[in-house]
Amino acid sequence: MDVTHEPSSMRIAVVGSGAVGCYYGGRLANSGRDVHFLMRSDLDHVRKHGLSIRSHHGDFVLPTVQVSATPEEIGPCDLVIIALKATSNDQLKRLIPPLLHERTSLLTLQNGLGSDEWLANCFGAERVLGGLCFVCINRTGPGEVHHLAEGRVSIGEFAGPPQPRTHAITAAFNEAGVPCHVVDSLSTERWKKLTWNIPFNGLSIAAGGIDTEQILADAGLNQLARELIREVIGAAQRLGHDLPADIEDIQMRATESMGPYRPSSLIDFQQGRGVEVEAIWGEPYRRAIAGGAAMPRLEMLYFLLRRLAPAGRK
Amino acid sequence: MDVTHEPSSMRIAVVGSGAVGCYYGGRLANSGRDVHFLMRSDLDHVRKHGLSIRSHHGDFVLPTVQVSATPEEIGPCDLVIIALKATSNDQLKRLIPPLLHERTSLLTLQNGLGSDEWLANCFGAERVLGGLCFVCINRTGPGEVHHLAEGRVSIGEFAGPPQPRTHAITAAFNEAGVPCHVVDSLSTERWKKLTWNIPFNGLSIAAGGIDTEQILADAGLNQLARELIREVIGAAQRLGHDLPADIEDIQMRATESMGPYRPSSLIDFQQGRGVEVEAIWGEPYRRAIAGGAAMPRLEMLYFLLRRLAPAGRK
Repeated sequence: MDVTHEPSSMRIAVVGSGAVGCYYGGRLANSGRDVHFLMRSDLDHVRKHGLSIRSHHGDFVLPTVQVSATPEEIGPCDLVIIALKATSNDQLKRLIPPLLHERTSLLTLQNGLGSDEWLANCFGAERVLGGLCFVCINRTGPGEVHHLAEGRVSIGEFAGPPQPRTHAITAAFNEAGVPCHVVDSLSTERWKKLTWNIPFNGLSIAAGGIDTEQILADAGLNQLARELIREVIGAAQRLGHDLPADIEDIQMRATESMGPYRPSSLIDFQQGRGVEVEAIWGEPYRRAIAGGAAMPRLEMLYFLLRRLAPAGRK
Repeated sequence: MDVTHEPSSMRIAVVGSGAVGCYYGGRLANSGRDVHFLMRSDLDHVRKHGLSIRSHHGDFVLPTVQVSATPEEIGPCDLVIIALKATSNDQLKRLIPPLLHERTSLLTLQNGLGSDEWLANCFGAERVLGGLCFVCINRTGPGEVHHLAEGRVSIGEFAGPPQPRTHAITAAFNEAGVPCHVVDSLSTERWKKLTWNIPFNGLSIAAGGIDTEQILADAGLNQLARELIREVIGAAQRLGHDLPADIEDIQMRATESMGPYRPSSLIDFQQGRGVEVEAIWGEPYRRAIAGGAAMPRLEMLYFLLRRLAPAGRK
């Protein structure tokens, strides 16, 4: 069985039980999908208490979820949703193989650049899809997620144009109450998302641990956020990705509507966890430079963040 | 009496009893000069215990120093050495006038740009000299200074070429064991010094509270320091100040020789005191931009520091 046939019986594994994994996996399970969560630290709690989603679209609790400590317990699935931090990708070499059959699809919901290629190299490019989550979401405890705003997902194929499975997976998300659509170019979407993550996740840490409202209210940081967005747009264009002409204003307005939002990287940083410095800043910086773009502000932000949130934290 | 006559009887006031005021004032007093220290928080301690200078050139203690709580107690002097943080300049409007006679000279040892003009506006341009201190020096307690490295001072006139008094004051410093020389252009010297203070004072704070050795050892921050130096050289050139062609390498090598040095701005920051953000980063940034220079890294550093170390701390 694979995701192009019998989508309603799609067997799904979710790897990573942070906010993203619990939220999207929880919505899919809540819609009746056969979802298996791979968990480590939250395993016992979720086995006993299930998943609890507090959402501005309506709270819900899944008292009983299928949760396992090892991928062998779960076994082969049609779709593996990867929601680990990119800083933990080395674990996937061990965690993914028991979940695979010949036509298993891998959907990474990870941030930034690099995870698509990494999964393609390890498990085959034809398996890989990427999903971009536009969502304000925080993990508030084991198996507990607070969904603050937005929630939509854009899904694209890593290795080519959309396929029947791309639409099937997208349909599964939509049926689960997650607004989801298929995108023609995954990498263009990734650059588009970076026009937000690079400035706002980055400045929230580099400016001393502040939320998006504080960034916007500070004249210098507001200007800097816009300048970083422009650098990212310029890099994307050089690399062949045409972003909407008004993306700078769109991102600034979207941020205004978020209120005092703490980006996920800031929360990771403040809680002593790994920050996806390479995925969000390092890899975009390297690709932009390789493409001939001048990125003085992204470079500086990357160098500062690499020092402030060194690799090695998980 | 003024500093062009009878230099040996020069009456000197030192305003500000941080590391710089205590160190240079202490050396001048130790050489037999008539030095009057204006102090507030350290007054009682210094009155009882004097000044204590621990120096790699030899420690010395001044058990009895002339110290006053008010400028009125001191009265008119020939030379007023200003060693307050630029963040406290508003206090000078009240502190300076009682120290003035008709020909009193004001020598500011303050960092960065802006204090010369501020003093000139308040008290007359003809009074103002600036001194640039190339010194690694930390205040370790009330009236206690640790002199770690260097120590030389460059002195120039604010309003024109060197005068007899410029040489007389310089001679007083040299006689006190402080290597000191007269410079033709105070503002060129200020830009030269900024090629160090802007990157190293700035990155030590923005990168999370690290010393100069840690900055140099981090490949990204090392590169960033060099890039900031180049931006400052470019701005200085646009504003008519030709800095030595090899100043970038000079500053990097000088920093290597300092070891794990914590710049004064970092110490101020970590101890919750005011950081001279406007003098060291803000005013140079504004002048560079007004001169048509592109300063993306200085701009970013300034915007971050303004947020990290907001005005209002003293």
